[in-house]
Amino acid sequence: MNSPHNLQLFPGSAAAHWLTQLRTASPLVHCLTNQVVQNFTANVLLALGASPAMVVARQEAGDFSAIASGLLVNVGTLNETQVEAMLLAVASANGAGVPWVLDPVAVGGLGYRTDFAHRLLTMQPAAIRGNASEIMALAGFSSAGRGVDSTDDSLDALPAAVELANRCGAIVAVTGAIDYVTDGQTCYALPFGDPLMTRVVGTGCALSAVVAAFLSLDKGKRLELVACACMVMAFCGGAAAKESAGPGSFVPRFLDLLYQLQPEHLMGKTL
Amino acid sequence: MNSPHNLQLFPGSAAAHWLTQLRTASPLVHCLTNQVVQNFTANVLLALGASPAMVVARQEAGDFSAIASGLLVNVGTLNETQVEAMLLAVASANGAGVPWVLDPVAVGGLGYRTDFAHRLLTMQPAAIRGNASEIMALAGFSSAGRGVDSTDDSLDALPAAVELANRCGAIVAVTGAIDYVTDGQTCYALPFGDPLMTRVVGTGCALSAVVAAFLSLDKGKRLELVACACMVMAFCGGAAAKESAGPGSFVPRFLDLLYQLQPEHLMGKTL
Amino acid sequence: MNSPHNLQLFPGSAAAHWLTQLRTASPLVHCLTNQVVQNFTANVLLALGASPAMVVARQEAGDFSAIASGLLVNVGTLNETQVEAMLLAVASANGAGVPWVLDPVAVGGLGYRTDFAHRLLTMQPAAIRGNASEIMALAGFSSAGRGVDSTDDSLDALPAAVELANRCGAIVAVTGAIDYVTDGQTCYALPFGDPLMTRVVGTGCALSAVVAAFLSLDKGKRLELVACACMVMAFCGGAAAKESAGPGSFVPRFLDLLYQLQPEHLMGKTL
Repeated sequence: MNSPHNLQLFPGSAAAHWLTQLRTASPLVHCLTNQVVQNFTANVLLALGASPAMVVARQEAGDFSAIASGLLVNVGTLNETQVEAMLLAVASANGAGVPWVLDPVAVGGLGYRTDFAHRLLTMQPAAIRGNASEIMALAGFSSAGRGVDSTDDSLDALPAAVELANRCGAIVAVTGAIDYVTDGQTCYALPFGDPLMTRVVGTGCALSAVVAAFLSLDKGKRLELVACACMVMAFCGGAAAKESAGPGSFVPRFLDLLYQLQPEHLMGKTL
Repeated sequence: MNSPHNLQLFPGSAAAHWLTQLRTASPLVHCLTNQVVQNFTANVLLALGASPAMVVARQEAGDFSAIASGLLVNVGTLNETQVEAMLLAVASANGAGVPWVLDPVAVGGLGYRTDFAHRLLTMQPAAIRGNASEIMALAGFSSAGRGVDSTDDSLDALPAAVELANRCGAIVAVTGAIDYVTDGQTCYALPFGDPLMTRVVGTGCALSAVVAAFLSLDKGKRLELVACACMVMAFCGGAAAKESAGPGSFVPRFLDLLYQLQPEHLMGKTL
Repeated sequence: MNSPHNLQLFPGSAAAHWLTQLRTASPLVHCLTNQVVQNFTANVLLALGASPAMVVARQEAGDFSAIASGLLVNVGTLNETQVEAMLLAVASANGAGVPWVLDPVAVGGLGYRTDFAHRLLTMQPAAIRGNASEIMALAGFSSAGRGVDSTDDSLDALPAAVELANRCGAIVAVTGAIDYVTDGQTCYALPFGDPLMTRVVGTGCALSAVVAAFLSLDKGKRLELVACACMVMAFCGGAAAKESAGPGSFVPRFLDLLYQLQPEHLMGKTL
């Protein structure tokens, strides 16, 4: 499966390897994220075997990101207090060599967060994870986004993702029915998700935290690690959706599957 | 079933009609709500087919409410930052003709939120949704409320609801074991809920967001649309309670039923 | 079972007695807690039969804690606004004779919250509830904590708990695989929990709120009441873990069991 962007399926064997590493390392993920998804994000990280911490004050955010394994910056409910803490945390993470992830929630139509996201783009994120509308807006492509919804297809945003990756040196993941992950050269396609995941708040935001967890495992393998994060989440999400009567029963089942997931499941064994 | 307030049962056929409209429109609901219930509120809206967005900064709240379909203002964890964002959002919603809903959580005993709620009352809410103690306090009737609990029966608050509706031109919903919805003339009674819903935080707060979602469908049908929101939530809540072993299993079942609900269920077909 | 600290098993009959009292009193618990666990904390209190309220503004926090049954102060996502509200609430609670509980989340490595926790220690908390690393740090013992994780065993922290209890006059609960509760003389051991509870965010934070609820029942029985709170939570948590496929299904099952729990279950009847 080839394309102008050298599109490849991500190998389950690689995901299996890194899942084992994640469980051993139990990375500490500093989450500066939006108010709506903090609980779910923490529970996703804990279920998977990582360790979440939400240290939000400007007095502590910088100190903490330097000792964390990875940092998440999500602008979903951005406010002035958070802007200050995020800038301190990012600077400190960069100083300490801690990878950080940008989740540009609803960037595009809203000026305050869009300006801030563009400022963050200059601060060397290791990865950016958004839906099609967000990635297109961040890359300066026109989009049809409305608030936190993506009204664009993830494949339509692939050129924007490639452009953004090349411009700022980050791995870019554009997620949707199929997830695409690119370093500007190679693109992985991950066709494991389920539309039911869009009816549960925070599945994308939690994925961004999981990206930060995986990125902490090896600085030389960023493309592979971001793809691995997307695969693990979409794989468990797709499996949970098939067993769920709706978005309510999806959540506990999804968390149970993240907890139960073993490397062999990513290589073909039924979860 | 008649009364001094012209009390009527709300027809399931009307609710069925508007549910179909809601699913088609997928209204974008701007939620300025309390910290405790943001996740649940978002998941309720998503399960039902609406689209939630929590845009909280004063830099963005006004711009966003003008493009939203409806706005919710819930004072449950009111603070100074939120007061500023809420005033901007309400003014902008009013300017753009976007209906907004006031949820006066724990108004009565606590001066800061009570003063602010009275200020909001002068800003033309399309609807007000509260428990008996809150509606009585807001209308200036004496009540026995304690924090967020209602110690008054919803029927006892009906005169206060009627008075409040007439005074400020809003539809008023007073919810409890039975919900009552009035425009000051006609009152609908909705006897579908279950006491278990009071053991789950945020069922009332999420209802207020659903009221905002329904109100966006037709400005000329406000009384009917608020009653419809109450009926849909109480109907699914009552059904979920019957199938639940407690408040823990209630939540996923409730969300699943909101997702599965079809118009014919509101007209007598078993959910 | 004796030890240098006069270690005893806590009697189920006492827990059964106080559970009945809690259900009758339905204490109103003012929770000033972290952003991540507010929803879960509220649902735990509601499921058990208490009444939660999160009143966060400095304009209201003092007035409200004076009329509450108990107050929780949790520094997990401490910020400047919260510091001000917490100091007002604690002073007001002390003035009104309302017991308050300190949850020193991640105290130790982070200076801002550690300094604030030490300040709070001088303000007469009725109880302190933390994991081993937090209690050791608060007592000035060396620890191996990392963020919100405890890397120390709860038994290792017992000397620190005893020292802290004697120094500040609070009941100290150090929770982990086994919970220990001490007034500086007598120590109760509560071996009912399950490691799965550490994979769900907020089980410890919610316990601290439940401690505040139980403490409101009788000012002369603080040691017994804190132990009772720990027993109820660990008992239901242990039972829920045994029936759960993972941390996702644990949450609804745990809340259902808190709701279903009867005094006789604490005296040996199968839950």
